[in-house]
Amino acid sequence: MSKFSIGVDFGTLSGRAVLVDVNTGEEVASAVYEYTHKVMDEYLPDGKTKLGIDWALQHPQDYLDVLSNTIPQVLKSANVFSKDVIGIGIDFTACTILPTDKAGKPLCFYDEFKSEPHAYVKLWKHHAAQEHANRLNEIASKRQEKFLDLYGGKISSEWLVPKVMQIAEEAPHIYKAADKIIEATDWIILMLTGQEKRNSCTAGYKAIWHKHRGYPSKDFFRALDPMLEDLVDTKLSRDIYPIGEKAGEINDFGHKLTGLDKGTAVAVGNVDAHVSVPAVGITEPGKMLMIMGTSTCHMLLGEQEHAVPGICGVVEDGILPGFMGYEAGQSCVGDHFDWFVKNCVPVHYYQEAQKQNIGIHDYLTNLASKQKVGQSGLLALDWWNGNRSVLVDVDLTGMILGMTLLTKPEEVYRALIEATAYGTRMIIETFRKNGVPIYELYAAGGIVFKNPMMMQIYADVTGMEIKLSASPQTPALGSAIFGALAAGSERGGYDNIADAAKAMSKVRKDLVYKPQVENVMVYDKIYQEYKNLHDYFGRGANDVMKRLKVIKEETRC
Amino acid sequence: MSKFSIGVDFGTLSGRAVLVDVNTGEEVASAVYEYTHKVMDEYLPDGKTKLGIDWALQHPQDYLDVLSNTIPQVLKSANVFSKDVIGIGIDFTACTILPTDKAGKPLCFYDEFKSEPHAYVKLWKHHAAQEHANRLNEIASKRQEKFLDLYGGKISSEWLVPKVMQIAEEAPHIYKAADKIIEATDWIILMLTGQEKRNSCTAGYKAIWHKHRGYPSKDFFRALDPMLEDLVDTKLSRDIYPIGEKAGEINDFGHKLTGLDKGTAVAVGNVDAHVSVPAVGITEPGKMLMIMGTSTCHMLLGEQEHAVPGICGVVEDGILPGFMGYEAGQSCVGDHFDWFVKNCVPVHYYQEAQKQNIGIHDYLTNLASKQKVGQSGLLALDWWNGNRSVLVDVDLTGMILGMTLLTKPEEVYRALIEATAYGTRMIIETFRKNGVPIYELYAAGGIVFKNPMMMQIYADVTGMEIKLSASPQTPALGSAIFGALAAGSERGGYDNIADAAKAMSKVRKDLVYKPQVENVMVYDKIYQEYKNLHDYFGRGANDVMKRLKVIKEETRC
Repeated sequence: MSKFSIGVDFGTLSGRAVLVDVNTGEEVASAVYEYTHKVMDEYLPDGKTKLGIDWALQHPQDYLDVLSNTIPQVLKSANVFSKDVIGIGIDFTACTILPTDKAGKPLCFYDEFKSEPHAYVKLWKHHAAQEHANRLNEIASKRQEKFLDLYGGKISSEWLVPKVMQIAEEAPHIYKAADKIIEATDWIILMLTGQEKRNSCTAGYKAIWHKHRGYPSKDFFRALDPMLEDLVDTKLSRDIYPIGEKAGEINDFGHKLTGLDKGTAVAVGNVDAHVSVPAVGITEPGKMLMIMGTSTCHMLLGEQEHAVPGICGVVEDGILPGFMGYEAGQSCVGDHFDWFVKNCVPVHYYQEAQKQNIGIHDYLTNLASKQKVGQSGLLALDWWNGNRSVLVDVDLTGMILGMTLLTKPEEVYRALIEATAYGTRMIIETFRKNGVPIYELYAAGGIVFKNPMMMQIYADVTGMEIKLSASPQTPALGSAIFGALAAGSERGGYDNIADAAKAMSKVRKDLVYKPQVENVMVYDKIYQEYKNLHDYFGRGANDVMKRLKVIKEETRC
Repeated sequence: MSKFSIGVDFGTLSGRAVLVDVNTGEEVASAVYEYTHKVMDEYLPDGKTKLGIDWALQHPQDYLDVLSNTIPQVLKSANVFSKDVIGIGIDFTACTILPTDKAGKPLCFYDEFKSEPHAYVKLWKHHAAQEHANRLNEIASKRQEKFLDLYGGKISSEWLVPKVMQIAEEAPHIYKAADKIIEATDWIILMLTGQEKRNSCTAGYKAIWHKHRGYPSKDFFRALDPMLEDLVDTKLSRDIYPIGEKAGEINDFGHKLTGLDKGTAVAVGNVDAHVSVPAVGITEPGKMLMIMGTSTCHMLLGEQEHAVPGICGVVEDGILPGFMGYEAGQSCVGDHFDWFVKNCVPVHYYQEAQKQNIGIHDYLTNLASKQKVGQSGLLALDWWNGNRSVLVDVDLTGMILGMTLLTKPEEVYRALIEATAYGTRMIIETFRKNGVPIYELYAAGGIVFKNPMMMQIYADVTGMEIKLSASPQTPALGSAIFGALAAGSERGGYDNIADAAKAMSKVRKDLVYKPQVENVMVYDKIYQEYKNLHDYFGRGANDVMKRLKVIKEETRC
């Protein structure tokens, strides 16, 4: 009799559950639920309370609705009984946090707070705490806080502390009313099990927690704002549970919500990118997973803790138990190509694509595939949305050179793809140079399957083979793997992540992108040019992009 | 009783005659004739003889057809008698040359040569002599030929000597059969008057002739190719006539061709850009005329001969008698904007333009006009077609930076316009730095009237007022002015160019573009950024554009 695990992946606009056979990794059913309130970036649900620029909120009821809709649905459509589900794991966007009362009830569920923007979930892409992040970085840098080095030298405005600073300073009554400020992924675990078991991944990558050194000092928090002095002890938690542990079991509330049997094992909460690592079978150092979409996350295990300049972070147990988890990122990948097709592609291209009954991306890719490496003479810097790794600079902007009057749209399109590949190579080389080896590349994400030319370019630019995830929903599969791990072998699951991943992970066997020697040789030359310009514009030799941005901002006044 | 002068402007695709009242400058009639053979860049008229890459030929019969069609037409439509036409001037594209027999009959008119590509007119944009130009520059530079400095350090492949080298080496029998190799503008004068009177403008700017030092030495020509040793004495001419002189009078052949009376004064041949200078009333130093179209020519008078790096040339009597004529150029102006609308503008922009019943350029301009200076954060180098002045480098390519995911097509469009304005400012500053003053700016060319935003940008970027030509056909008006000068006061014309220009030139009185202080201040800052990047990419600090071009060319092999 087969046993099953459920993985639930909470994305930016919807949540998705998959039901997975724990012996084979087969995804026997899946279901999606779109958030009723989507991303709130203009008004609260009352339709009256206006939000500021760069705000992005969510409604926690939507998350509960994901669970109550999708889990019964996958069981039903696969005709699987809840008794055969041995475990559940979940992953979430991060840093996505909310204030709750002592029992975990979100403050925004209270009538008195429902018109208070700060009472809602702050989504990962809530960017209104930039000022607070700037102040934090300045203070941390002045105080020579050691933690900075582990985050590539900068704390992002997307992360927990700047977001909490914003709450405390703009809405002190909300800050005071909050018993907890908690990651959504941990909040879901609290809802399912009744237990607050905060996970090492978000604590480490998003809340400046270190396995051995803990959080920054009270002194530091007081320097940020006297109100924050006791933040950790009053609203966060020092009890952090490594990824891979069991958080608890489905309780009464969890049972009513999901239809899963009470006692079903629940894994510690996780994050979408990080949870994908075992889903492609990676359980050891040296294998980097690129999760490619509008932006790209780079996940990598290491043996030792190294301060690698410009990465997003290194966290012990942050990806898999027993390893240093390294994360880096490119802030703009698929977004480049979307910007391009929306803003730069002439009408006859769309007409021809329509005639051929294919999408514009496919049409451009078909044309671009016919080009030889280096044939366009174009070179771009992939900074349309700033640079996350390794420069960590949101004020950098895009650049392209090499245009002539004969330059065609498909050539620019290809140059943008190549630029993102050069950006990835820059990240790989930075890891290597700083003592973190990388031997193999894996890729996951929708774009990976849609664009073979892109994957070949990545193989040729990096000079490395690239293996692909075989799951269309890699994070959810990863969560299911952690569900099976939480259940343990006694219940038909697994006792360690390597065994679980070996049985349940999925990598395409039929398709591996191998670097082509003749392409590698040309890309090596062009990459040197990319590197020159990357350093010239990105490391202070010519800060023209920043000066233009200052002028741009002055025109707004 | 009014007297009239005729100006005929031979362009790239058609010739245009205007009939002008010599007292008022009023253009009483005009007529256009499109060349039957257009630009021949694939086949000879036989439809069989294939031309090489970068060839561009014309058929001299088309030029004669312009005269026989347009001149009778303007007389007829204005109801003016030929006896009241006191003079005629013509201007042509240059360097546009053809081989003829002793009487001036083009070799391509002979049956035996009509399938010989080298027997036809080589149009200015015939670019197949690049190798020859490279060799010429190398040899001249090794020999430290002084003339190089007067041409900004480089002889263009568009000019006479490289084109003649190509004839001599690829078709020595044509070279030998040619009694003359002559500029089309001088050939027209020979047809109208029976006299070979080569002009100082094309001799100086295109054939390396100097008023005091003459042509390069026989030694130099022998070094290019022993066959060319006697080029000047056997196929060119050392008798050069200053612009502004009378070449002769309409003879029998000219009368039959045009219907003009025998004895009508004919001015020495001229070139379209240069002839435009007096048409906007410029007859003294310090006033620069920009003739703006697909590319831009900058014409300027000076008192002294200065070697200005990167200009196209300085020629005594080259524009007006008694002055040093300076020419500079930008190889890609309107061409940028056309490339952009053809390759980079999305369908909904075209739809919206159509809805508003305006052209795409107007639509983009309307949107771009609403932007404040510096608001887009974009900065481009206007090198899509290389850089003519002041870098004289065809291997440079376009660059743009500052893009974000919010960058809009109209912002890129405006950035390209601004880039060409920065290019113009670079030219102006280079002249000034090298002892050639510029106090005033004038502009002519179709684009000047179509795009007020562009002209305001030029005024703001240069910090100078810009006056506009009031004639829709400035070169033809300029030619008519020289026709009136050739006739002299005795016949109702003028005895000096200043008087002729004062009476007949036309500048818009109602519209002068004045720099706006607040814009000038911002553009000053952005121009410094342009200058930095111009020098970084253009003067050897980072030759990435050239290295990418090498890679590009290698892919072709």
